[in-house]
Amino acid sequence: MERLPGFRDFYPEPIPHKDVGSADARQYIFGKWRAAARRYGFREYDGPPLESLELFTTKSGEEIVGQLYNFTDKGDRAVALRPEMTPTLARMVAAHERAYKKPIKWFALPQLFRYERQQKGRLREHFQFNADIFGEADTAADAELIALLIDTLRSFGLTAEDFVIRLSSRNAWQEFYKRGVPSAGHGTGGEYQFYQVIDKLERTSPEETEKKLAALGFSLDAVNGFIEAGEPTVELKAMLDNLTARGLGDFVKVDYRVIRGLAYYTGPVFEAFDRKGEFRAIAGGGRYDNLVKLISGGKVNLPALGFGMGDVVLLELLKARGLLPQFDGGVDVFVLIEHEALRLESLKLIQDLRAAGRVVEYSFTPAKPDKQFKRAQELKAAHTASVEADSKVRVRNLLTREEKIVMPEEVGKLVGGPPSS
Amino acid sequence: MERLPGFRDFYPEPIPHKDVGSADARQYIFGKWRAAARRYGFREYDGPPLESLELFTTKSGEEIVGQLYNFTDKGDRAVALRPEMTPTLARMVAAHERAYKKPIKWFALPQLFRYERQQKGRLREHFQFNADIFGEADTAADAELIALLIDTLRSFGLTAEDFVIRLSSRNAWQEFYKRGVPSAGHGTGGEYQFYQVIDKLERTSPEETEKKLAALGFSLDAVNGFIEAGEPTVELKAMLDNLTARGLGDFVKVDYRVIRGLAYYTGPVFEAFDRKGEFRAIAGGGRYDNLVKLISGGKVNLPALGFGMGDVVLLELLKARGLLPQFDGGVDVFVLIEHEALRLESLKLIQDLRAAGRVVEYSFTPAKPDKQFKRAQELKAAHTASVEADSKVRVRNLLTREEKIVMPEEVGKLVGGPPSS
Repeated sequence: MERLPGFRDFYPEPIPHKDVGSADARQYIFGKWRAAARRYGFREYDGPPLESLELFTTKSGEEIVGQLYNFTDKGDRAVALRPEMTPTLARMVAAHERAYKKPIKWFALPQLFRYERQQKGRLREHFQFNADIFGEADTAADAELIALLIDTLRSFGLTAEDFVIRLSSRNAWQEFYKRGVPSAGHGTGGEYQFYQVIDKLERTSPEETEKKLAALGFSLDAVNGFIEAGEPTVELKAMLDNLTARGLGDFVKVDYRVIRGLAYYTGPVFEAFDRKGEFRAIAGGGRYDNLVKLISGGKVNLPALGFGMGDVVLLELLKARGLLPQFDGGVDVFVLIEHEALRLESLKLIQDLRAAGRVVEYSFTPAKPDKQFKRAQELKAAHTASVEADSKVRVRNLLTREEKIVMPEEVGKLVGGPPSS
Repeated sequence: MERLPGFRDFYPEPIPHKDVGSADARQYIFGKWRAAARRYGFREYDGPPLESLELFTTKSGEEIVGQLYNFTDKGDRAVALRPEMTPTLARMVAAHERAYKKPIKWFALPQLFRYERQQKGRLREHFQFNADIFGEADTAADAELIALLIDTLRSFGLTAEDFVIRLSSRNAWQEFYKRGVPSAGHGTGGEYQFYQVIDKLERTSPEETEKKLAALGFSLDAVNGFIEAGEPTVELKAMLDNLTARGLGDFVKVDYRVIRGLAYYTGPVFEAFDRKGEFRAIAGGGRYDNLVKLISGGKVNLPALGFGMGDVVLLELLKARGLLPQFDGGVDVFVLIEHEALRLESLKLIQDLRAAGRVVEYSFTPAKPDKQFKRAQELKAAHTASVEADSKVRVRNLLTREEKIVMPEEVGKLVGGPPSS
């Protein structure tokens, strides 16, 4: 029996096949995501992987259904596996925001699901780092969020030479649009259509774009001129000053080609890209001040902003830059049982070492000493330890080959760093 | 909009309502589970939350479907949200077991799903710690697994006075059954029916049990006598000796009333219970030597054993015993910005402290010093720090009230332990 198409199995390293995921790499990424969020004072939350379909159509319209992993459950409810975390988060915040002091700074590491036409290698699930701030309208919050994004990527060893945050603003484009439409000659849909054209600028031919812009009353030259000037708005200027004060100025540039496809963004928006342009966006986000109101049916109104960073592009980038560490089980000590008469005494030593926080392996059944030693090497154990007939323990450092004979209670501090919690 | 019935939202502590989950408690439990598994040399894996329905019916028969969160996907596949991890694990091991040296020791922390008739407070999802060993037939593996179970529970502060592992064996009951059926008067279904009666012993009236046993050719007296004698089999004796050598003898007792409902167990089985008998089983597991063969369609044959421990009963038990710690954001330092002219300089300090691994908070927008200080106290920050006009930093320990004025680069080591990774 096989796994479903578009899903990943995660195996311990070294992974047995290139088509399966690495559980160790996944945990490594999760650990870095969590640690960065915590340093920034973000608190963890999570919601159900399954939600009512209505939650997602309320936010994104009925057309989202075509991309969802949705179905009718045994209780006749229209439900869907979550395709993104923001609707769940807005629902949770709206339900209990009064219990939390503002600003609310929360993060989550959800698995997300989409059911699109199957393409080779295209996944139907991925994990995402989501960080959001609620209840703060000032651009200081936007700068804080972008600083977290930058420092998260830096914590993997990526530098300003590897990636850049392209910073833009819905407000800048809104002003541009309004300046360009002096007469009331366009319907209300014009502004949204205009954003769609800008969003597809890099994936559309100039001729095609020219035509679409003309239909909306704009010229490609004017649009390109605005992009090339890249004059930061007052809000973007404040964010740049804030980030520069932190020493993060080299990681951001104003780039109005970024506008973010999703209709609900309301202010500054941004995307993280690798500098060489080899990969899709590493992360993206921005302000969405109206969403909590929409999801709560008008009951709660809170300014909000956030970003999402997926595990798939990040993993590809880290691999390409040689930034993934070697993973092994981190065995501190392999206890050799050289005489079966000493097995029970050895079990006691194993127990005590684990109680002291050490990662300990041994052979379950009688095996020749050289076979046991070979296994210790395969497991990349840092040390071996063996109980001697006089109940003392021979400890060998497999890196330095140094040997010591010590009392059992002294082994723990010889074979590892500080105890794990 | 509300979450679906039977699902939990997980909020940061302090949680806003008793009906929602605590994200901090969940992460605390996950952290302890992971740390215990790693000390024992278990490696992490994971599979998809969604699998083909056939994977689960192959293992458990068609009758399992009534309890599953199953549906037909857009590609007309019969699929189900996983109700347990073992079938996925057996599938994964069967697919790639040759790439791994035996014994294979793996663990996972999956979220699992069931769709049963809705009962008040009954959940349709929970998280489970799963630990399994493949490729070792010796009882040394059973003892290792139970030692891990015990040490996992101990790592939460639970003692031999709080819980006990009730140890039993399918083999013991099989011998009892065969001794009791000297003539070939019973069909092949008799043995399985007999196990079902034993499994329900504690939830059925003696009269009812007596009747059912009589129909199978047994007396309740004989069954009760066998249970009361509690004579360990050779395999259980070896496991007890092994655990006693580790100093864990007080945590286990032979109790043949435990037999585990699931049909696929083949040898020693066990369940962890609170000593006071207030809660359902904390964990359960045993040997299932035939399952890999079944799932792989006969291609791979490996002895196997494992246990599962859910988050719901464990959380109830820890709460009842007062063993859950207080959770907060662990803020190391709240940076007070007392003069707006020093905001950019303060941002630099914040950045440097976070780069050194400290958890740092501050006020995004101008606020009176006493309001900022109040916020620091609400967040239970360990320290405050404020940049002075001469660029030195005033650091205050909020516990000891000790104040120091130091250079910016000296603040990091004043306000926290070792840097986080």
